[in-house]
Amino acid sequence: MPDNIPADSVGIVVPQVAHFEQALSLSCGTELAQYDLIYETYGSLNAERSNAILICHALSGDHHAAGYHAMDDKKPGWWDNAIGPGKPIDTSRFYVICLNNLGGCGGSTGPTTVNPETNQVWGADFPIVTVEDWVESQARLADKLGIDTFAAIVGGSLGGMQVLQWSIRYPDRLKSAVIIASAPKLSTQNIAFNEVARQSISRDPEFHQGDYHAQQTLPRNGLGLARMLGHITYLSTDSLGEKFGRTMRHDKYQYNYDIDFEVESYLRYQGEAFTKRFDANTYMLMTKALDYFDPAAKADGDLAKVLAVAKCDFLLVSFSTDWRFSPERSEEIVDALVKAGKHVSYARVEASQGHDAFLFPLPRYMAALSGFLNRTHNTLLSSKNKGAN
Amino acid sequence: MPDNIPADSVGIVVPQVAHFEQALSLSCGTELAQYDLIYETYGSLNAERSNAILICHALSGDHHAAGYHAMDDKKPGWWDNAIGPGKPIDTSRFYVICLNNLGGCGGSTGPTTVNPETNQVWGADFPIVTVEDWVESQARLADKLGIDTFAAIVGGSLGGMQVLQWSIRYPDRLKSAVIIASAPKLSTQNIAFNEVARQSISRDPEFHQGDYHAQQTLPRNGLGLARMLGHITYLSTDSLGEKFGRTMRHDKYQYNYDIDFEVESYLRYQGEAFTKRFDANTYMLMTKALDYFDPAAKADGDLAKVLAVAKCDFLLVSFSTDWRFSPERSEEIVDALVKAGKHVSYARVEASQGHDAFLFPLPRYMAALSGFLNRTHNTLLSSKNKGAN
Repeated sequence: MPDNIPADSVGIVVPQVAHFEQALSLSCGTELAQYDLIYETYGSLNAERSNAILICHALSGDHHAAGYHAMDDKKPGWWDNAIGPGKPIDTSRFYVICLNNLGGCGGSTGPTTVNPETNQVWGADFPIVTVEDWVESQARLADKLGIDTFAAIVGGSLGGMQVLQWSIRYPDRLKSAVIIASAPKLSTQNIAFNEVARQSISRDPEFHQGDYHAQQTLPRNGLGLARMLGHITYLSTDSLGEKFGRTMRHDKYQYNYDIDFEVESYLRYQGEAFTKRFDANTYMLMTKALDYFDPAAKADGDLAKVLAVAKCDFLLVSFSTDWRFSPERSEEIVDALVKAGKHVSYARVEASQGHDAFLFPLPRYMAALSGFLNRTHNTLLSSKNKGAN
Repeated sequence: MPDNIPADSVGIVVPQVAHFEQALSLSCGTELAQYDLIYETYGSLNAERSNAILICHALSGDHHAAGYHAMDDKKPGWWDNAIGPGKPIDTSRFYVICLNNLGGCGGSTGPTTVNPETNQVWGADFPIVTVEDWVESQARLADKLGIDTFAAIVGGSLGGMQVLQWSIRYPDRLKSAVIIASAPKLSTQNIAFNEVARQSISRDPEFHQGDYHAQQTLPRNGLGLARMLGHITYLSTDSLGEKFGRTMRHDKYQYNYDIDFEVESYLRYQGEAFTKRFDANTYMLMTKALDYFDPAAKADGDLAKVLAVAKCDFLLVSFSTDWRFSPERSEEIVDALVKAGKHVSYARVEASQGHDAFLFPLPRYMAALSGFLNRTHNTLLSSKNKGAN
């Protein structure tokens, strides 16, 4: 491993693209005739093809979860602190797969890719996809990679919703499920924040009803605003306070609308940086996927009833200062699993970082993840030994 | 009183305008050569001129706190449930004054009025005013009305900050102070939300750097967004949930960006309605006044030290589910007052409505207000009797 890449990194990774020609029926009623999914893998698939872990990403994530794309990359993938040799999601034991979801803007088919039927960028024509649709597409990727059953499926936030959906839709295809800082459905307040984010984008005159690519422009102002708002809700009240307090940029107030407080500068920077890497239509549809997810709806709100089919072991993790997906929301899932008689472990982790905590390598959180996946690994070994006898 | 106006209403009220020709020096360093303040009064000033109560309004409030402007008004003033004969702020005992603050858009000099020096609408040229500036202008209005000492000064949220400032700046001019759902200074998160609101407005191409009147347009989209966001933060997580839950407009998801959930409709409506009654420049400067207020800054953050000069009795009220100005923020003021050896009463009221609770006639809240102002009234009577002896 070269000097500038740490020894516990998965190293240089090369994304791969899987092309699918079998039409995918979507929740919205239309179908996607063909599509691509971009993904990365870390570690090696064992001979039994039983050691695969699927990582499901959240709103602004993508397939690049760990390692580096180039020697001079300044940052590794978004969850590098949890994925690697010897790390909680241990690539010396597991074969880890992370894909960019349909509708994303990281290379999978979505609003920024070309619709082969029209030879135009999809833009606003790309359909709204759901957590259910993603799980279907992920199952097809698993088929293509020859993975019948995942050792684990893991995700935080919107990613956790995908894990929950897997446990209900394909109970035989995963041994364990790790659902972090998530919820069985969004609260009214969550939906309200998402709606403000969407309105921020759609009211930007550069949005052009989503067909901004055709107009050779981008709704930067609106997407930036949506991200600024999102950022506030990802951080805890205390962590924002500790990070910035009322620290000012100058030694006195400016009495204009330039930057007075450092937190203003931070938010503007975060908003601006996001517009350079993310697509506004993808942001819109990701928030809809969040709003729409509600697996218990089909059982009159009885989540335990819906989870009755699940066969995997569950680990739930929540963070004390997360007010976007509070511990109580994770506990709704825990309670439903207990009621349904499932194996469930739960860690409510003290953390100052709010919702963002799920991206930090907090010791108790990492220990819970390691411990749970160790057990999963031991179960694989024991099945293998049984198989050999 | 006509049939359609309740007996405990102050009835039909006529706003008055006071014109000031003595220049007012502002915190920003410039001065306002002349200005108008629009105000309303309810009840009668006693012979001793000692029974006046000043009401300070919050971000989107104005001078019309109680009663009706016309027989066919559908709604009374914004705090009608607390102000009137026999109500907690009892107009059969007190002479109540409420003004629209400088920089407002209710009729006092501000961005929407004409600058007499240029004969143009002030627009973006109107200076950013502060809580300190407001208190100065309110003191001048008191002078003009011949009120040397207020029986009480009362305000919620940003209004509470004005009350706090009065107690520090003019300790001899008020007998009691009522500070509701307020804070000694904004938190980082509060400032962050304000910054997103300001950016929503200033990024609207119809904003024209604040000179939208000259362009005969209005930044409706941006102001509406700011209000939508504000609304979410004024309501508690639970009250939003109880009010709307995940109730849908149609029996199934639309799979587009029209309204799926009723909460989306509510927010859009609230945003739209606000743009018809409120001015974007006023919104901008009100948020800055909030951000800037920090009376303890001049004493290295020691609020007790700054409050040492205060002479009035204090009532603080907070609401359990208010996360914009949480009870802990009111308790910072209570603690500082206790440390400074002041008379302070405090009610932490259980309420489901979040920050908005300060506008609801909640029994315990109203009882605290009544009880405290009764005592103030009794003190007035006893001083009067002493004076007569």
